[in-house]
Amino acid sequence: MSISAQFDFAPLLPAGLPAPAARWTGLAKYSFVGGNNDPDGIPVDGLIEAVNAVLKREGKALATYNLAHGPQGYRPLREFLTQKLKRDAGIACTPDDILIVSGSLQALDLVNHTLLARGDTVLIEQESYEGALKRLTRLGVNAVGIPLDSDGMRMDALASALADHKRRGITPKYIYTIPTVQNPTGSILPEARRAEMLKLSQQYGVPIFEDDCYADLVWSGERPPAIYAMSKHGGVIHIGSFSKSIAPALRVGFIVAPWAMMSRMLALKTDAGSGALEQMVLAEFCAPHFTTHVPRLTRGLGAKLDTLMEALSEQFGTAAEFEAPKGGIFLWVKLPDNVDTLKLYQAALAAGVSINPGPEWSTDRSYSTSRLRLCFASPSHQEIRDGVAVLAEVCRREFGVPARSANVEKRA
Amino acid sequence: MSISAQFDFAPLLPAGLPAPAARWTGLAKYSFVGGNNDPDGIPVDGLIEAVNAVLKREGKALATYNLAHGPQGYRPLREFLTQKLKRDAGIACTPDDILIVSGSLQALDLVNHTLLARGDTVLIEQESYEGALKRLTRLGVNAVGIPLDSDGMRMDALASALADHKRRGITPKYIYTIPTVQNPTGSILPEARRAEMLKLSQQYGVPIFEDDCYADLVWSGERPPAIYAMSKHGGVIHIGSFSKSIAPALRVGFIVAPWAMMSRMLALKTDAGSGALEQMVLAEFCAPHFTTHVPRLTRGLGAKLDTLMEALSEQFGTAAEFEAPKGGIFLWVKLPDNVDTLKLYQAALAAGVSINPGPEWSTDRSYSTSRLRLCFASPSHQEIRDGVAVLAEVCRREFGVPARSANVEKRA
Repeated sequence: MSISAQFDFAPLLPAGLPAPAARWTGLAKYSFVGGNNDPDGIPVDGLIEAVNAVLKREGKALATYNLAHGPQGYRPLREFLTQKLKRDAGIACTPDDILIVSGSLQALDLVNHTLLARGDTVLIEQESYEGALKRLTRLGVNAVGIPLDSDGMRMDALASALADHKRRGITPKYIYTIPTVQNPTGSILPEARRAEMLKLSQQYGVPIFEDDCYADLVWSGERPPAIYAMSKHGGVIHIGSFSKSIAPALRVGFIVAPWAMMSRMLALKTDAGSGALEQMVLAEFCAPHFTTHVPRLTRGLGAKLDTLMEALSEQFGTAAEFEAPKGGIFLWVKLPDNVDTLKLYQAALAAGVSINPGPEWSTDRSYSTSRLRLCFASPSHQEIRDGVAVLAEVCRREFGVPARSANVEKRA
Repeated sequence: MSISAQFDFAPLLPAGLPAPAARWTGLAKYSFVGGNNDPDGIPVDGLIEAVNAVLKREGKALATYNLAHGPQGYRPLREFLTQKLKRDAGIACTPDDILIVSGSLQALDLVNHTLLARGDTVLIEQESYEGALKRLTRLGVNAVGIPLDSDGMRMDALASALADHKRRGITPKYIYTIPTVQNPTGSILPEARRAEMLKLSQQYGVPIFEDDCYADLVWSGERPPAIYAMSKHGGVIHIGSFSKSIAPALRVGFIVAPWAMMSRMLALKTDAGSGALEQMVLAEFCAPHFTTHVPRLTRGLGAKLDTLMEALSEQFGTAAEFEAPKGGIFLWVKLPDNVDTLKLYQAALAAGVSINPGPEWSTDRSYSTSRLRLCFASPSHQEIRDGVAVLAEVCRREFGVPARSANVEKRA
């Protein structure tokens, strides 16, 4: 076939498409990116036991879309969630208040498509999940960052932003928050701030979009009630996921929302249901095992965090500043002001280390330029140590920091 | 909590949202709708065997998004598909040409979002899949129906439509076809027409969007090569699914496309991958068992079709006209001209029978008003007989047809 015979799709593409993807070339040797989990934390034997039981009992139901449980998903999984959400997050809801989705990313899409139009404004933690920020950019929505401190979103700043927008005649479409193990900072919003946020939400008629996808991974095992649970006015949309507590590749998340939102999101969920086998396996596994599995998982994650913090201290010395997160799978790190983490990202990738550069996780470019996110769940302890050493070498070569410190020399 | 305290989402909703969903109330007693499959056709034991093997071997990989196989999906499943597509459809492709998606509905969305903008035109079989038609309506795209005969899309009509649009300065964005077991008519487009379609596609610079999701379910086991396989210019996008051959609730489909399209669709597939467990189970099961499973499945489906056609003849006599489909899970039926199947749908539903009214499956309202689609895979033989009897009673009550025939009286 000659080149000239090739069909040309280019003239048919509409305006505004994102740039084409590049060919996938595999994960970096030392990968500190992505919400990947600890391979040793996957409860493989328990999942096998669960899948055998549920397929033997209900396998023929796979012949029917949604297992004939309707578009909100496999009912036993929604029943497990009502118990789990009550126990862990204080949420009183029924299976009819829950929609099972294909990962919390589909939850983001459904909430966004229900509420947002081009030109709208939302309020969001100044440092936030890159996937949420990128979606807003693509939708042409103005994401206004609210500064954080070590207890999460600052309520004084939120109150100011709401008042300021009201003066300008703008009603933000929602306040997006990751209150429990904030991404990327790892903080937990205290109960008093949650109450304050709810007060502001009601006062200004702006709903709260609560993303609790990391909330199971709290070192202490204790967390404040979900904002959804504390709401008396029903203006909260709550989402969560099994990606962090069980396995990200399963792609199962959920939305808890009032029917006024749920009925709109259902109308937009035109995928004939999320994967049923994964819902079946999760329900069967989680009902008996979730509460013993999660503490085992978080112990392993906590140990990896310790390794990461030790490696950073050893390799970067005082050049790397961070606050230990209260749970989760990532550490938010400040490097010296002269380090541009977008450039560091490129140089490190060439050396086999992938990191999340700060500007992709923030609405404030200058604040985030010298910051980065490091995910620690997926690499082994040895890979964490080796990867951080390579990262320090690259950073030193590119930016002159960290200096060859006493710590580093001691290793020789 | 007082009613007045309820948060009101309504002022926040953007224009153009679809109507809110109604609460799900379960399937009809006699359900002749939806692409549901035969519960007895689900290879439960084989799936259990497969899931045990693959989870024991690769279960820990669930800790990594996409099982670390990249955004195009689990590689062994793509490898199985290259062999299957070569053997069954004559398609020569590599795993890099395949994207695993969450059911062929996600394939429709990805192709549509890559090519279509509001106001665009596409050419589509005059009777076609309701989900495809509805998507085009929502996107504000003009779907121009090309008439069918018993061999599928008429090439004289396609040539005329292309010429007509060219005269008016309009380039349709694609020609959408379900050539192999057409939905809803069950025809198979002969090879000569496929060649003619390709010639027209190249002549007018309009790509072909080939939806082969029913193509495994051909009674004879033989089918013409896929249009994708016959193309020499690369202007074909091919999609398929495991919904009909294995189980719809799994939500696994695939796209085969040139990189010019693939790279754009990958950029739009922001769901962090489709469900991995389902991909793993399918690969593990299908590689050894697909070729023996499918003929067993289609034998069962063919028997149900026979039951349905017998029941229609018995209950409706000559009032129900149909042509036996060459495969698949549905029958397209013509009732007397005075029957409005949208009204019949409502009345039948109230009597416990769900049907697909013709106008939802056609671009031509007047042609389709007295037609309906009946899916026969999911109900049992007895349910088929009983459901058709109820449908005939309702139709007689509402429209006076079928008359009480000799056949019906004989049953008393």
